[in-house]
Amino acid sequence: MEYNIADRMGQVEGSVIRQLLTLAGDPKMISFGSGNPASEAFPVAEIAAITARVLAEDPIAMLQYGLSEGYAPLRDTLKTRLKAEGIGFENNELYIVSGGQQACDLMAKLFVNEGETVIVEEPSFMGALNTFRSYGAKLVGVPMEADGMDLSALEQALKSHPDCRFIYMIPNFQNPTGFTTSLEKRRAIYALAQRYDVLILEDDPYGTLRFAGEAVPSLKSLDTDGRVVYTGSFSKVMAPAFRLGYMVFDAALSDRFAAAKQCVDVHSNLLFQHICYAYMTQYDFEGHIDRLKALYARKAALMVEAMTTHFHPAVRFNSPEGGLFIMAFLPDGKDAYPFVAEGITRGVLTVPGVAFAADPQKPSSGFRLNFSTPSDEQILQGCKILGELTHAWLG
Amino acid sequence: MEYNIADRMGQVEGSVIRQLLTLAGDPKMISFGSGNPASEAFPVAEIAAITARVLAEDPIAMLQYGLSEGYAPLRDTLKTRLKAEGIGFENNELYIVSGGQQACDLMAKLFVNEGETVIVEEPSFMGALNTFRSYGAKLVGVPMEADGMDLSALEQALKSHPDCRFIYMIPNFQNPTGFTTSLEKRRAIYALAQRYDVLILEDDPYGTLRFAGEAVPSLKSLDTDGRVVYTGSFSKVMAPAFRLGYMVFDAALSDRFAAAKQCVDVHSNLLFQHICYAYMTQYDFEGHIDRLKALYARKAALMVEAMTTHFHPAVRFNSPEGGLFIMAFLPDGKDAYPFVAEGITRGVLTVPGVAFAADPQKPSSGFRLNFSTPSDEQILQGCKILGELTHAWLG
Repeated sequence: MEYNIADRMGQVEGSVIRQLLTLAGDPKMISFGSGNPASEAFPVAEIAAITARVLAEDPIAMLQYGLSEGYAPLRDTLKTRLKAEGIGFENNELYIVSGGQQACDLMAKLFVNEGETVIVEEPSFMGALNTFRSYGAKLVGVPMEADGMDLSALEQALKSHPDCRFIYMIPNFQNPTGFTTSLEKRRAIYALAQRYDVLILEDDPYGTLRFAGEAVPSLKSLDTDGRVVYTGSFSKVMAPAFRLGYMVFDAALSDRFAAAKQCVDVHSNLLFQHICYAYMTQYDFEGHIDRLKALYARKAALMVEAMTTHFHPAVRFNSPEGGLFIMAFLPDGKDAYPFVAEGITRGVLTVPGVAFAADPQKPSSGFRLNFSTPSDEQILQGCKILGELTHAWLG
Repeated sequence: MEYNIADRMGQVEGSVIRQLLTLAGDPKMISFGSGNPASEAFPVAEIAAITARVLAEDPIAMLQYGLSEGYAPLRDTLKTRLKAEGIGFENNELYIVSGGQQACDLMAKLFVNEGETVIVEEPSFMGALNTFRSYGAKLVGVPMEADGMDLSALEQALKSHPDCRFIYMIPNFQNPTGFTTSLEKRRAIYALAQRYDVLILEDDPYGTLRFAGEAVPSLKSLDTDGRVVYTGSFSKVMAPAFRLGYMVFDAALSDRFAAAKQCVDVHSNLLFQHICYAYMTQYDFEGHIDRLKALYARKAALMVEAMTTHFHPAVRFNSPEGGLFIMAFLPDGKDAYPFVAEGITRGVLTVPGVAFAADPQKPSSGFRLNFSTPSDEQILQGCKILGELTHAWLG
């Protein structure tokens, strides 16, 4: 039969890179293509120990229906942690959600009518962009610079899109660029959000994984109006399959977020909430974070060094201060898609910038490299192959 | 600040029963109000044993990002089981989802434009109705009879709502009525769906828990067109906090459902998928189901007997053949809401029918009683109190 798909889903399908990414499963492929954290760093023994204990001590609490807002002791633990980072909870509330992806889903569900605008960093996390598209949002991209969005382009976008409902940004070690928005730009972006009366969705899955430079205050910590919705994730600091994240928002929105959460999956899984709580309060969580940072700092440095050694000097890239990604840019606006495709035929998978574009018709000169999952040998070998390719392309 | 909530969410808020249900947490309250399965029946020891084993044997597979469509061996196991119930997989596909609630979410996301119609049984599961509302769907209720929807009202609804995208039904031991749609009506409903070219969402969280009468073939097993999307759940046969269910749909829709799933939570949690797979294939899953059936049969019989003994004879109710619920109806269309409110002041919580209404302005004479969670003593005591109240009300 003929299926009538809802208009809102029309924009979602047909990712240009789905075919490319299926190649990531090829065991001979050196994959810089994933967004996965390093598997070797999962605290497996502790997770197993906590699981055995909580299933023995209070199995029903792990298995019966739970509260939509999340497990209260975990929520309190996260609030305490965020308070230390300058986010107050006099007027804010924190709910547990099923990963940062669901935070994007709830935000769009609650605030964006079909056809209305969401302003996004260009390039930005494809999963979030698709979620906004799935609500019929019109995406308007603002070019990302090494210290955050181009402010005049942002103001222009706000001015010409009075139906904008929120600005979506990943201020720390952005996916895909690895760029961090400076404090100055955070303040300026917040002021623009005030002037044009829009919300900000501050997506911060990587903020805890800063391995160089100074921490920059979150936009939420600068928020005086209840204008910023902040989301964090356990995917990168505990394990992605926990499917757990959290959202911080003005307490006036609590009933709205609870109702939206009930509509999508009732509540997030309880066992993993208990594991996160126990690990954060009874184990060496800070030591675990430090080990992750050391691991990622080493891998990032290895990749930057290999890129510096092998890549054609006209290819630009930054040293990230955290997170999982580096984006490299071909010179003169050259489209990176055929470059990435040829890299794949030579056995190295990266992700072309077009995958992260608000407008997927617009070519991008960037390609994303992930340093958290490949082995050291793969990083060295993959960068050598890509480097040869840059020389072949750029002469 | 003033928040502009998306129009689609305007219908969702303000459930008349949220206040009532907060009372369910009062330890002195006898609660017939929940939709929870019996906690004492969770296979705790087996879950703990499987968890310990899989976390020891293959921790990374439990913790790293997984596939949106779900864990393949679990999907195959479910397909084999459903094949035995007459659902073929030549043209169908099965994906794991994060509970039946998410199945409703994905279905509405994929098929319903704002303002379009979803036809629902009246009364029906409030969680599904709110999810459809959260996509701006217009809900049209068709009265539920003891053997399924009123067919002439259904045809009338289809005729007068040519923008209907699907019919939502819970054919087995419906929530809230406990009613089961007869095979004759299933065939007639399918034929009407063909005539008016609409889809059917067949929500079957309770079908496995038939403790009396003969099994009735699913609508999906009657489906020749790829018109039925079927969803089942692990919430009632394993544990709700697993947040796991599954959807069966025409394979032509696979990419669409995968894209929609990626937009909401990337994938469902892997550990619990492995637990379900191991429990279904390596443990006595059928014996567990049999024990659940025996438990629920006994509790349902106890409640029906207590209701028969204590309730005013003008209050009508059926003996359910499975599931978790009985709905009782006050005579002469009397609004059950004030009855339920007075029951609560006497210490017994039930849920008024209006909570399950497509049109929450329309009074309902029904109130829902759950027999799976209260203890035997609570069932006897609660029915006695409610019975006295029926006599006080009906004289």
